[in-house]
Parts: sequence; C-alpha cells; structure tokens
Amino acid sequence: MPQLRIALAQTNPVVGDLTANADKLIEWAREASARGAHLVVFTEMFLTGYPVEDLVLRSSFVDASVAALTSAAERLQAEGLGDLPVVVGYVDRSGVAPRVGQPKGAPLDAAALLHRGHVVTRTAKHHLPNYGVFDEYRYFVRGDRMPIFRLHGVDVAIAVCEDLWQDGGPVLAAGQAGAGLLVVPNASPYEREKDDVRLALCASRAREAGCALAYANQVGGQDELIFDGDSIVVGADGELISRAAQFREELLVTDLDLPAADPEARPGSFPVDAGDGTTITVERLELSADPLPPYEPEPPVVAPRLDDLEEVYSALVLGVRDYVTKNGFHSVILGLSGGIDSALTATIAADAVGPDRVHVVLMPSRHSSEHSISDARDLVERQGVNSRLVPIEGIVDSFENEVDLHGLAAENLQARVRGMLLMGLSNEHGHLVLTTGNKSELATGYSTLYGDSAGGFAPIKDVLKTTVWALSRWRNSQAGHPSDLLHPFPTPPIPENSITKEPSAELRPGQRDTDSLPPYDVLDHLLSDYVERDMGKAGLVAAGHDPDLVARVIRLVDIAEYKRRQYPPGPKITPKNFGRDRRLPITNRWRETPGN
Amino acid sequence: MPQLRIALAQTNPVVGDLTANADKLIEWAREASARGAHLVVFTEMFLTGYPVEDLVLRSSFVDASVAALTSAAERLQAEGLGDLPVVVGYVDRSGVAPRVGQPKGAPLDAAALLHRGHVVTRTAKHHLPNYGVFDEYRYFVRGDRMPIFRLHGVDVAIAVCEDLWQDGGPVLAAGQAGAGLLVVPNASPYEREKDDVRLALCASRAREAGCALAYANQVGGQDELIFDGDSIVVGADGELISRAAQFREELLVTDLDLPAADPEARPGSFPVDAGDGTTITVERLELSADPLPPYEPEPPVVAPRLDDLEEVYSALVLGVRDYVTKNGFHSVILGLSGGIDSALTATIAADAVGPDRVHVVLMPSRHSSEHSISDARDLVERQGVNSRLVPIEGIVDSFENEVDLHGLAAENLQARVRGMLLMGLSNEHGHLVLTTGNKSELATGYSTLYGDSAGGFAPIKDVLKTTVWALSRWRNSQAGHPSDLLHPFPTPPIPENSITKEPSAELRPGQRDTDSLPPYDVLDHLLSDYVERDMGKAGLVAAGHDPDLVARVIRLVDIAEYKRRQYPPGPKITPKNFGRDRRLPITNRWRETPGN
Repeated sequence: MPQLRIALAQTNPVVGDLTANADKLIEWAREASARGAHLVVFTEMFLTGYPVEDLVLRSSFVDASVAALTSAAERLQAEGLGDLPVVVGYVDRSGVAPRVGQPKGAPLDAAALLHRGHVVTRTAKHHLPNYGVFDEYRYFVRGDRMPIFRLHGVDVAIAVCEDLWQDGGPVLAAGQAGAGLLVVPNASPYEREKDDVRLALCASRAREAGCALAYANQVGGQDELIFDGDSIVVGADGELISRAAQFREELLVTDLDLPAADPEARPGSFPVDAGDGTTITVERLELSADPLPPYEPEPPVVAPRLDDLEEVYSALVLGVRDYVTKNGFHSVILGLSGGIDSALTATIAADAVGPDRVHVVLMPSRHSSEHSISDARDLVERQGVNSRLVPIEGIVDSFENEVDLHGLAAENLQARVRGMLLMGLSNEHGHLVLTTGNKSELATGYSTLYGDSAGGFAPIKDVLKTTVWALSRWRNSQAGHPSDLLHPFPTPPIPENSITKEPSAELRPGQRDTDSLPPYDVLDHLLSDYVERDMGKAGLVAAGHDPDLVARVIRLVDIAEYKRRQYPPGPKITPKNFGRDRRLPITNRWRETPGN
Repeated sequence: MPQLRIALAQTNPVVGDLTANADKLIEWAREASARGAHLVVFTEMFLTGYPVEDLVLRSSFVDASVAALTSAAERLQAEGLGDLPVVVGYVDRSGVAPRVGQPKGAPLDAAALLHRGHVVTRTAKHHLPNYGVFDEYRYFVRGDRMPIFRLHGVDVAIAVCEDLWQDGGPVLAAGQAGAGLLVVPNASPYEREKDDVRLALCASRAREAGCALAYANQVGGQDELIFDGDSIVVGADGELISRAAQFREELLVTDLDLPAADPEARPGSFPVDAGDGTTITVERLELSADPLPPYEPEPPVVAPRLDDLEEVYSALVLGVRDYVTKNGFHSVILGLSGGIDSALTATIAADAVGPDRVHVVLMPSRHSSEHSISDARDLVERQGVNSRLVPIEGIVDSFENEVDLHGLAAENLQARVRGMLLMGLSNEHGHLVLTTGNKSELATGYSTLYGDSAGGFAPIKDVLKTTVWALSRWRNSQAGHPSDLLHPFPTPPIPENSITKEPSAELRPGQRDTDSLPPYDVLDHLLSDYVERDMGKAGLVAAGHDPDLVARVIRLVDIAEYKRRQYPPGPKITPKNFGRDRRLPITNRWRETPGN
C-alpha cells in the first residue's frame, strides 16, 4: 500500500490578525517539512482565525483574506516549501448574485490546497451550523464543491468541520469518489466530555466514507470559546491511530498506509447527489501519481487524555491567558475577599499570566469577618501576587450621607463601591478587571449588577459552586507538578480555610449564602438539569427534584436573565451557559485602519 | 363581483403572555364582528407575541401556544363569534424527526384559520429570515403548506410575513392557485422610512400574485424593536385601498370587491413548485361557496403619514412606554444634567408614562457649571416631574482619599458615582433607570462603562446627536398639540438653553465635546455612512469624507465595541445600530411557573 506522512497543525490563530497567522503558517509548514511530512493540514479559517462573525460581512476583510491566501502560497514557494502540499482554512466569497436575506458578499467558510506557489483548488463548508454557539447562516453561503487530489498515488479529499457532523454532503461524496484519506480542518470548541463524542464521530464517518480520516482542530481561547485541540487520525475501520494533546499547540505527525488510487479515475469534475437535496461537484486533481518508495514509518503518537477536572482547569487557564494576551493587556486586577470564588479566580489568573502580573485588592467593609483579611493575605503570601488594601467603609458612609438605602439596595452599594474601585484602578493602570462570580450565583441572580459583575472577563462564570470547590482541591493537589498551564507554586496555592469555610457574601451582619439559596449540592444538581440539560419543570420533578425548589429556582433563573446578559464573557465549559447562550465575540485584531 | 369586509387587527401583544393575548383576540374579534366584518386577520405569532426567541425551544411553551389556539377557537364559538373566520399567528411544531442542528422540537412560525369552534387549517412561514434583527434559522423549521379557503365565493390564501419579502414560495403558490385575496399576518419592525418600502413591496407582490393583498402588522415596543403598525390593503393592481395609522392600535376595516372563485376548483391538495428548489402543498378548503348579497360598502380609510421627526419621536415614546409597562415598572429615574441628551430623555419619558412617574436627580460636581443646575431646574418646572438634588463632591472625595486617580480614570469616577446613585435609588424605590447617552457618543466610545451607561433602558441610544437637537426642537413645536404619545404640556417642555448651549460632559474644568470629537454635523454624517450604510474605509473617502477623520472615527467605533455591548437596550430606529446589531430580547411574561 502507498505510504503518506501527514502533519496536522493544531495551532492557536488570532482572530483578524492575518499577518501573524500567515507567519505561523510558514513557520509550521517549515517544521512539518523538517519532519518529512508529505502533506500538512491547518485548521478551519486558520488564516483569519475562527470565529470572525460580523467581520466576514466587510468586503475589505474578505479581500484581505483572499489576498493572504495567494500570498501564503507564493511565500511557501519562495521559502523553499513549495513542494509540501498545504491544506488551510480561510474566508472566501461565492460568486452568487445578491438576494434579500443572503449574507452580504456571500462569504464562504473556505479551505484551499496550496502547492508550488499556487492555490491549486478551493472548497468551502457545505453544512452550516446554526445552533448553540454557531450562527453560520448569518455569515456564510453553502459550499457545493469537493476536491479530491492525488498525492503520491493516494486520493485525498477535503471536507470542513460541520460537514463531518451532518449526514450527506462531502463525507458521502468522498466515499463515492473513492478517497483513500479524508482531511478535515476544524474549529470545534471545547465542552466537558466532548473529546469522547469527537472520537466516536471521526470513527463513524471514516467507516461511512470507507477511508482514513485526519481531523485537525484549533486550540486556544477566543472570548467565551475555548478550542481544545485533540486532533485525531483514525483508519478506514474507525480505529484510533494517533491523537494530539488537549489545550496545547502541537504538530501531530502520522505515517499512514493508504489504499492506492484507482488509476482509471482521471482528473475532471462530476456531480454527486449529496443525499440532502443538493448536488456536490467532485473535482479530481493530480499532484503526483506514483507512490513513494517504501520508508520506515515513525510510531504513532497518542497523547494521554486529561481527567475531567484537569480538562476544565486547563480550559479556564487557557481562556484567561488568551483573552488577556489577544486583547493586548499585560496584567489583571481582581478583588480578593478571602472566599473561595476570588481565591480560585486569582489562582487561575496566576497560572495564566504569572503571579507577578496579578494584582489583588482587599476591600473590607464593616461587615467583613476577621478571616476575610487573614485568608486573603494567606493567598497573597502563597502565590506572591501584588496586593493592596482599600477599606470601603468611608466611601460607603459618604454615599449614605447623601441617600437613604436599606436592605438589598444597601448591600448592592457595597458591591458597587468595590466594582468602582477596581474599574478606577483598571483605568489608571491598564489592568484587565477579572470578575469572580460563579455560575450558581449568576444563574440565580445572586450578584450585583455593576458591582461584583463589573469587569472585562469572568473566568469562572460557567463553573458551578460545587465545581469551584472541586477545582480548588484539585489545583492544590498539583502543587509541585508544574506544567505549561500550572505555575510552579511549591505549596498548595489556595488557603485551606478558603475552601472549607461556609460561603458568605458578607454584605450584612451574619449573612450566609444559605439564607437566600438552597445548599449548593442541591442547587447545582438542579441548575445542571435545568440550564445545561434544558429540562422543563415537569421533567425536573420527574427526575426527583423537590417540586417547590424547582418552582423557586426556575423563577430565580428566568428572572436573572437581564443581569446575566450584562455579565462579561468567560470561558465556556458546558453545552449551555445560562438561559441564553449566544457567542458574541469581542476581541479581534483586524481593523479597517491597520497600524492604528 | 363578490364583496368581503375584512378587518385587520393591528394590535400590541405581550411576548409570552398567552392569556392576555388570547383575551385581546376575543375582544378584537367581537369588535370586528360588531363592525360587520366577514374575516378578521391578526398579526404574526399574535398569541405568543413576537419575537419570542429561545422560548420556542422549550417544549412546554410550544405546548402552551398550541393549547391557547385550540382554546381560542372554542372560546370564540362559546361567545357567539364562531361564524366570523379568524386568521391568527401562533407557534406550532412540525412533525419532522430531530437531527443535528435543527431547532429543538422543530418549531413553526405558524398561522391558523379558526371557524365555528375549530382550528380549520394551519400553515407556517416558508421563508425564514436570518439577517439584521432576525435569527429564525435558529428557532424555526420551514413551513411547506399554503391553505386557500373559499369564503363567500372568494378564494383567500394565507402567507406569513417574510414570505412576502422573498421571491418564490407562498406568493407564487397563491397566484398559481388563483387566489382572489392574500392575507398576510406580520411582525415587521420599524425603521426610518420603512413605510415607503413596505407599501411598494405589498403593491409589487399583489401584482405578482394577481390578487388583492391585506397586510396586518403588529404595533408596540419589545425591547429594542418597535413595531409601527401601518397595516395596508392593496388591490390586485397594486393600488393602495386602505392604510392604518402608525404607532397606534387600530382595527382597519375595508370593503373589497373581489373576483369570484373558480367553481371548478374543488377542495383538496396539490403540489406547486415553489420556484426556490422546494415544493409547497396547496390545500383548498371551503367555508362558504356563495357570494354575499350585495351591500353598501364603507368608504376606505387611509390614515395620514407622519413626517420623519414625528415618526422617530413616536417610536421612542412607544418604546419607553412598552418597556416600562411590559416589564412591570411603575416609574423611571434618570440623571438630569442640564444638557440636551438628558433633557430629551426626560421629555420622552414624561410623554411615555406621564411626568408624575418620572424622577430626575440633579448631581452636580465641582466641575458643573452654573447653568447645569438652572437649566435642569427649568425643565423640572416646565414638566412637573419629581426631582431631587444630590451633590457628588463629597462622595468623589471619599474615593480619592483611598485611591489616586488621574485623567480619564478621574473623569470616569464621577460618571460612575452618578450611575451608582441612580442604581441605589432604583433598588430602593423600584424605579427603572433610564440612561441618557446618544448614538454619536456611544458609537465613538464617549461614555463611561458602569457610569452614564448604567441602567435598564436607553431611550436615545440609536439617535445621533444632530437628531437629538432636531427632535427637541420638534417636540417644543408641538406644545399645545397633545396626542396619545405627547403629554399635554402647555408650553415647550425643553428649555431653549439646553438646546442651544455648547455640549460638554463637564467632567473636568472647561471641557467641551469638541475637545475629543469632531463637530457633530461632520461626525454624524460619517457615522451614518459607516455604521448605518455599512460603507468601508475606501467608500467613505470616495464619498467625500476627510481621510484622516475617517481613519480616526473608524478606529474609535471599532474599539468602542466592548462598551457598546454592555449598553442596555433602547428603541431601534435605523437599519443598523452599531457594529453589531443582534436583537436580544429581555422582556417576557412567560414563566415555567406561572403565577409566581
């Protein structure tokens, strides 16, 4: 059987930064070439970054993407890498005529094959996802071509991301065209336990198409989305051959024995019924007809899987690191209360950007307990972050001299004074404000608009309180085992007392979370079923939740909608965040006026 | 020719409030019956309100909608209104099997015909809009049936909203089926000058289908969307026959002479090529075969058009009124600076809910000028709103005792102190906080996050500064001409000095808006071209804008994205609001646990 060494470039592009992404393309192609690869596959929309959302509706952006592709092909050739075929995702446009409701300029979620200085062929995603975090019917028109190119005697087909998740379309066409290998650029976001789903999908589609399948996935954070990598190669029988690490850039190099292409199948185009009411045009090309001389394959790499808590923690650290760096910040600031939410947030931040770039502010009030300050100071000493103390009592008094506030209004005032202090220090020194609210609080509205919710990024907004505790214990257990995502703290970075003490907002004397909320183990189980599993009232009761509690929590969650909408973005680790779960990217590096 | 008297129910439903909407259906059907109508047409998704967004993905909500429809049919019969055919929009579900990416439960944007206690037939929107403020691919599956029912010898077809805006589909099918009248329930949001587009569209589709067309549109505010009514009846030649008022509920009753149905065309179903790659099943029904005895028609009503400023002002007042009442607030609060933005916002609020339910707070700082207070007091006297004075100097000092803030950080602190005071008073007394920022400021980032942008609704967020002035002069010119949307102020409600003085944020000594921004006439023209017309850099320069200013303003607008995202909703009056323009409804009355 003919052999091929394929390289999957599991990389972290920056949305809108076409120049940096193109530089990375060259650099990684050089590395793939040095490792003897015969083909390198980059991720979906790698040249533009993914997702780019409204940027694709600007014609100057699509022009820039198309120009970057041509220029990348020429540059690969100029740098002596032209003989290595490169499959890479970018944004293109379709030639279809404008009509009401069609995305402006008819953009395509495209991929191209670059070889010997030229763009040899182009294709585009056929199935456009429009659910969960995806909005692609707004932004793209459907692709209807599938290239299959002969490389060293093997027929290689290209499909894009969602085309793998839907029946019919390019996978079907690849099978009918007799492909020996299907390569798939992806930008598939992380969710807990998604790696299992992904492997099962690759295996089943490989069997369906009757060919090996190479799945290259993006890695890195983009606002709320975290891409976890986990690139995969499976054989035509669906068996796993190689697999890249999670949450880390990696060039996954794999030697494959593949079926020889049918010598009767000649270059040219033919239509295939896509099985979904549309027709796909298969375009057959030839780069090189003859198999390579036999060579000694390298053993395949299968990176070990992370366990669940390590996965989640890695996603949170990567999310914070990329949000900070991709937005051009150099440091972060947050309030440290001595409680577990701000302690975990500070620790994630220290792991993400280093403790020297983390600034914490202790802001005791008249209701703060003794241990609030001592536990916070303990964390500062363990981690070596920068800290300052700003008592808020005088400021709260000055407000209360002017207006009479009681009950919740008075509690909110304290949270808002803290939020304003952090925003003031952010504006003065350029730190990014991190908020410290967890998902259990936010879902039930147990937070203050413009108070503890004021800030630029919310690292644990998708983490239930019980998971906050579990992650804290897990992180402490890793002291002495540093990694790319864990700072080398010699001792457990989180004070034990912050983990074990009873949660309190400390906004009135003797306040405890359980005054307003059910115990967190009960609440979190219910929230998980209602928010993440989307169960209705009847289903929740049938699942054994207390009917009165169901009614009470549903009411809290539904009413807290407005506050949650104003909450800053944070890494997304579950299928559903809150009631509404639309991705709205903020960060991008592309401007109409580059250089400004 | 056979005659028919049709009534279009141009009404204001409440999203999620199925009970109140059903009550309104009965009440308006009774009125239509009293006026001798032979058919009454309600608006798109009238029973559920429009838009309902994520609510349609809850199966309990779809169940409730379907049950409300059946029960409405029975109730009409029970109340003696069963003989009047009623066309009404609601949410239904398709029976199609679930698949990846399809909206959960396969909901339909449906309409039904009710007659003699039964749901006689059901249909659903075929063309799903997924651009601008519409996201319907996320929420609905496509309808593929078109009913045509014989009523007093006339064949009447039903299509839903977007089906009118797209080529092919139900309009084509209605023409092929030989309909004499096409009735169209709509929820078509207001934009400046949209009424002209709408009339031209109705005229052209009527000619295309070769039949008269009756277009019933929703009225009222729902978060950012304002529905303007403007229901229309045109003849088969496209000529206008009758037209309802803008921004007001109205039962538009129109007598029509219509072609007799073909007696050969019998009840039954047949397929029609929809001209868009799909097939539509036409379902022919008969309610009554024989024409009515001739009767004396009423003269048709054509409501006069509002001029442009009156249209915009009406949209803003209706938007505030409906946001306040549909969210269950009884009063509003805002900061009054003496400048024109807060003066206009206060006036819109007074027109919307009455001056006795408007609370203004004067919050002078050490940088406030003499006229800040005197102009604000002048407005309070002219309008009789509730007011209080809260100087902020002492509070600002108490912050500055704790942290050193300079420049922008110090300016932002003052805006945030004001925002916190308003939020505190809102929490204490239950007022809704209105923000006072205009579109020119927000687009360029000339506002403070958690400061002047803190609040629940932003009445003039889509109004450019030059339009703020124009609306203020227009409103003053209407003193003595009260209406449903204009409070009967005997004298001009806005102090002349607030209109004529130079704009300043008064956050540092001698500050003027032109220190940071170009003159507003220049800026607004550029913003309108960049944001609303979506022109790129090259196009803006070609249109005659100064190249340096283009680069500067584009940079401001692109960078201000984050702040704008956190801005509260406000009435939308232009095709595009800012860079991103997705509708995200907040208000709804439907809960999993009704009664709580």
